[in-house]
Amino acid sequence: MDYKKLPKEQLLALLAEEQKSFKKLQKEGISVDMTRGRPCKEQLDLSVGLLDTLKNSDFKSSGVDVRNYGCPEGIKEIRELFAELLGVRAEEVFAQDNSSLSLMYDLVQFAKQFGIMGSTPWNKLPAVKFVCPAPGYDRHFSICEALGIEMITVPMLEDGPDMNLVETIVKNDPAVKGIWCVPKYSNPTGITYSDSVVERLATMETAAPDFRIFYDNAYFIHVLKDTDDKLKNIFDVARKAGTLDRIYMFASTSKITFAGAGIACVAASENNIAELKKRFFFKTIGPNKVNQLAHAIYLKDKNNVLKLMKKHADILRPKFDLVDRMLAEDFAGDEFVRWSKPNGGYFISLDVKSCAKRIVELANAANVKFTNAGATFPYRIDDHDMNIRIAPSVPSLQELEFAMKVLISAIKQARMELVLKKSFAHTFE
Amino acid sequence: MDYKKLPKEQLLALLAEEQKSFKKLQKEGISVDMTRGRPCKEQLDLSVGLLDTLKNSDFKSSGVDVRNYGCPEGIKEIRELFAELLGVRAEEVFAQDNSSLSLMYDLVQFAKQFGIMGSTPWNKLPAVKFVCPAPGYDRHFSICEALGIEMITVPMLEDGPDMNLVETIVKNDPAVKGIWCVPKYSNPTGITYSDSVVERLATMETAAPDFRIFYDNAYFIHVLKDTDDKLKNIFDVARKAGTLDRIYMFASTSKITFAGAGIACVAASENNIAELKKRFFFKTIGPNKVNQLAHAIYLKDKNNVLKLMKKHADILRPKFDLVDRMLAEDFAGDEFVRWSKPNGGYFISLDVKSCAKRIVELANAANVKFTNAGATFPYRIDDHDMNIRIAPSVPSLQELEFAMKVLISAIKQARMELVLKKSFAHTFE
Repeated sequence: MDYKKLPKEQLLALLAEEQKSFKKLQKEGISVDMTRGRPCKEQLDLSVGLLDTLKNSDFKSSGVDVRNYGCPEGIKEIRELFAELLGVRAEEVFAQDNSSLSLMYDLVQFAKQFGIMGSTPWNKLPAVKFVCPAPGYDRHFSICEALGIEMITVPMLEDGPDMNLVETIVKNDPAVKGIWCVPKYSNPTGITYSDSVVERLATMETAAPDFRIFYDNAYFIHVLKDTDDKLKNIFDVARKAGTLDRIYMFASTSKITFAGAGIACVAASENNIAELKKRFFFKTIGPNKVNQLAHAIYLKDKNNVLKLMKKHADILRPKFDLVDRMLAEDFAGDEFVRWSKPNGGYFISLDVKSCAKRIVELANAANVKFTNAGATFPYRIDDHDMNIRIAPSVPSLQELEFAMKVLISAIKQARMELVLKKSFAHTFE
Repeated sequence: MDYKKLPKEQLLALLAEEQKSFKKLQKEGISVDMTRGRPCKEQLDLSVGLLDTLKNSDFKSSGVDVRNYGCPEGIKEIRELFAELLGVRAEEVFAQDNSSLSLMYDLVQFAKQFGIMGSTPWNKLPAVKFVCPAPGYDRHFSICEALGIEMITVPMLEDGPDMNLVETIVKNDPAVKGIWCVPKYSNPTGITYSDSVVERLATMETAAPDFRIFYDNAYFIHVLKDTDDKLKNIFDVARKAGTLDRIYMFASTSKITFAGAGIACVAASENNIAELKKRFFFKTIGPNKVNQLAHAIYLKDKNNVLKLMKKHADILRPKFDLVDRMLAEDFAGDEFVRWSKPNGGYFISLDVKSCAKRIVELANAANVKFTNAGATFPYRIDDHDMNIRIAPSVPSLQELEFAMKVLISAIKQARMELVLKKSFAHTFE
């Protein structure tokens, strides 16, 4: 609805009415946390079988007792499984513990401390910059902030980052050392990179010889609908183009088995893996191989993982559908409220221009928590104050329905307030 | 035996005889790996019950589902358990995944990148030095090498590092930022720090305000004999002296449950823990809390852990006894061959002056592998080429007996060769 077309009195009355129903919602005493893309209990229960897999096991992997020290690159079985899942070679997989974020952090920190394959340690350079397609994943941007890496915001389009811009930046500035990517079911916009974007990423000219694509393939197999987006295999393209060394691909079972107790890996060229092994030798006595073996046995192969992911989808889909349906009921065709309809991943991305902060604030007042507005942008600066990340996975359908009522009311109020502020500024001074 | 007292011909005949029996050993086709302090299969089997602990669990810790994200400082139950075991407060425990080495590396890397509590990042200083009591743990020294930290070797005495030397170094040079300690059943010499050493460490004057004791309490509960060495609680001393911030204490269940799949922690002042939480926020989505909960349930409390450690001791003691007995049979009273008789830990430390490299080389030729001679010293420089670390935990008693025959023969040969070289240099030119 275009509130600007309403007379002031009518708008004030409408706002008062909305505030009244909002107060009622506030009194329901329900609180819903939608801040992070967490799996819900029912999803976690899908993988309880993990704990039984080693019951009659001899704990052996390639002759090594997985309960003991050693094997810093991860056990053969789990490297092979990730290789099959990601379309890479087993020798290109370096499998660790539960947190792919931890691997990303470590790899950036290694580059800062030691450089990459003989390059100058990034700590010794006057500036290091990363290209940050936005909206994007806040924890990627946090790593840059923690490690003093300058972020260059690039718009996220329908088929990936604005590659014209990316190519220009990366080609002309040797201080640009990396780019963050979530290529499939992107966090938060839910889009998947087109073939052309993948090809351009793999083949673009980079001024920095130690440029790396931090390719966070977090949702590589996380389809929700009947149609699965197809992501071109960047390893295939890069292998052909001779640019394989520029890719660090990350993946994990966080949203396949247990979010906090899965297996994460980095897939990369054998050159990169050789360097990582050298670096990690000093840093650890090896990953938790008991958990790796349990995962390898439980997940078995790609076909079996696909079956498990279907069960996840069956739990998640009604939640995504509910969000979409409720938004549509109030805002279908509304030019001021837009939201994504992803085929997979964990988020619905909502855009309401100049209102995001206020909407999150209002929802918060009714105990419905979203990630802070702006969090999906570098330095938390959303120029248009418009993006809100909806993570519908954790709440039950009942809770979600409540949360959406709150959100929808908050959207309406924020927009009315905005129109009143702009059109009738004097009444608010 | 003092081979120098024998006539040359007799010595040559004795050596030839020894070489002959050594050749026989070589032909037995047994190989034994004693390079690392690993638990053996029987020890690992003690904790298989770990895998059943969560069977009927609700996976909850303080209301949090341990299978999900969150709780970067570790779950309450495991922090409380470590607190009880180490004699610190639960709020002073930061519990992570399986590798205490990884925590040590991360903490040094954090200091290099960010400084500690507002100090200049160590990366920005012209030099950073650590005091390294030696012989010591090779992986501590590796971290220094990897991160470009200069090592100052200080002799390890019967009751800990030479504190007169340590105090002088630490007081006068602000570039000295740390010291590596294994305070109980020290790796490799097996000694335990005296009360006086602990007190002096906690209270000594340090030129660097961000000086840290990297107190690797790896064998805090790992007694083998009836007598358990008593280590004074450094937290108590430092708390009283107001120097608590200078201690990072590390511990793990690596040699309590599974070496590669246990829980490691750092215990430190609440100031330190607050900083660590801040640093780790950027680095991880949290540790594997499923494994933490399993450990908390399985290990239960100190009393129960002590019972488990008794079972470990019952497996390990005969191996330590065998090493001691066989060395004594050949070298009791021999002024040229000395070895430790530790009450706990994982190592017997053997000293044979000017012969360590040759002994390890000879043993290796008979497929009995020891950690490289020199590995227990910074930069792998053992000035006297004398220290060999014996790790008797992994081999069976039969394998160990074989390995000791090889070692003993290697000692004799190396010493005879040395005497021949020195006394009759011309015959070897």
